Amino acid sequence: MEITSLQNAQVKKWARLKQKKYREAEGRFLIEGMHLVEEAGKAGLLTHILCTKETVPPCPDIPCTHVTRAILDKITGSVSGSDIAAICRFPDRSDENASRWILLDRIQDPGNLGTIIRSAYAFGYDTILLSEGCADPYNEKVIRSTQGALFHLCIRSCSLPDAVNDLKQHGVPIYATALHKDSIPLAQLSVPDTFAVLFGNEGQGVSEELLAMSDATLFIEMERFESLNVAVAAGITLYEMKQKRHP
Amino acid sequence: MEITSLQNAQVKKWARLKQKKYREAEGRFLIEGMHLVEEAGKAGLLTHILCTKETVPPCPDIPCTHVTRAILDKITGSVSGSDIAAICRFPDRSDENASRWILLDRIQDPGNLGTIIRSAYAFGYDTILLSEGCADPYNEKVIRSTQGALFHLCIRSCSLPDAVNDLKQHGVPIYATALHKDSIPLAQLSVPDTFAVLFGNEGQGVSEELLAMSDATLFIEMERFESLNVAVAAGITLYEMKQKRHP
Repeated sequence: MEITSLQNAQVKKWARLKQKKYREAEGRFLIEGMHLVEEAGKAGLLTHILCTKETVPPCPDIPCTHVTRAILDKITGSVSGSDIAAICRFPDRSDENASRWILLDRIQDPGNLGTIIRSAYAFGYDTILLSEGCADPYNEKVIRSTQGALFHLCIRSCSLPDAVNDLKQHGVPIYATALHKDSIPLAQLSVPDTFAVLFGNEGQGVSEELLAMSDATLFIEMERFESLNVAVAAGITLYEMKQKRHP
Repeated sequence: MEITSLQNAQVKKWARLKQKKYREAEGRFLIEGMHLVEEAGKAGLLTHILCTKETVPPCPDIPCTHVTRAILDKITGSVSGSDIAAICRFPDRSDENASRWILLDRIQDPGNLGTIIRSAYAFGYDTILLSEGCADPYNEKVIRSTQGALFHLCIRSCSLPDAVNDLKQHGVPIYATALHKDSIPLAQLSVPDTFAVLFGNEGQGVSEELLAMSDATLFIEMERFESLNVAVAAGITLYEMKQKRHP
């Protein structure tokens, strides 16, 4: 099957998936580019592939529609001239067996959120809880920054104070990151097997409410007293906690 | 003095500084927002402040022109509705006394470049050398991501192979970062007082030519074999090298 008209009703329906409300209504999201389509295929999330006639799609079992490059640009809203895109179902992963959690408090920048998800996957985390006010993880910029890592993780939005209360009732210590000099230097932390680590908003850091609920606050020692980009701070924290568990 | 017309010749001249060729021709660049203007003031780089009548500019000695918010939006090309912007001279810092260098090979994304510069400053570096093909450090997205750190550093574009040869002739070891499993795990490196560390392009990493010239390649140990965003990888590397020098 091939579609060549930009006015085609199905093209308009696919293009709507750029908006969160349609993603949620249809339980589907949109990805673009061969690398992401391959990663979504490995994770079993593809429902439909859209590509130019010249492109060989990676998963022969998945329904595929040939479209023009102009249609791909319209659907994805990008100008990068991709020759493949796909529609995916949301991952349906449980955090029932999780032993380590990443909690994100109002991470607003899509690039930062995606980069943190990418690092989380690389450092062996499986569960990320997002507060209200975080960027939507199925936003196209977030997905691109994750390089596909989010297809493999359990990522859900919730009330972080409720989640923290719940974790504490199960004996899980909560470590918040902060710039306070009276926090524990990250390098001096003894890292248990089970814990949750909490990163906060780009400008304001972790909310006072969540800081007060945390078991300890950590800070990253620098040479000059400056702040770091939150995705960099998260990367350093996840790296150091991994080194401490498995030196 | 106050300017209210979007067609004013001086407004058009300031707005041209969004383009690299005009920045280089005039030896000036443009910044936006109170935090950056304050930081540029501390670094002695301000030549002219532009702000709305209601705004109190931070440096009373610097010439100031009142403009409308529409003019600020036109000059900065932003839609963030800043009420202050400024024209700056380029920092004129020497790397004569540098003992540690960061070398960046074709870091193309302005956000990544700016974030690396921000981390470099926090971890005590003073000199960053950029290859051809890096984003322009005076691009507005780079400046915003640095949070002003670039005002305080020596950042210059050069031929990286020439710079590496020069550093090696002075006995400075060059550490490249790579995903190769046969590299030295970052945590096992002995960090000397003087060295240069090299980070490479988002998709391709450090060029083969520069890898071949390096004294060692480093890799960051992860739980899953994945790649990290280059600004995160740089942040982790600078953090770990600092910890090893001053545990």
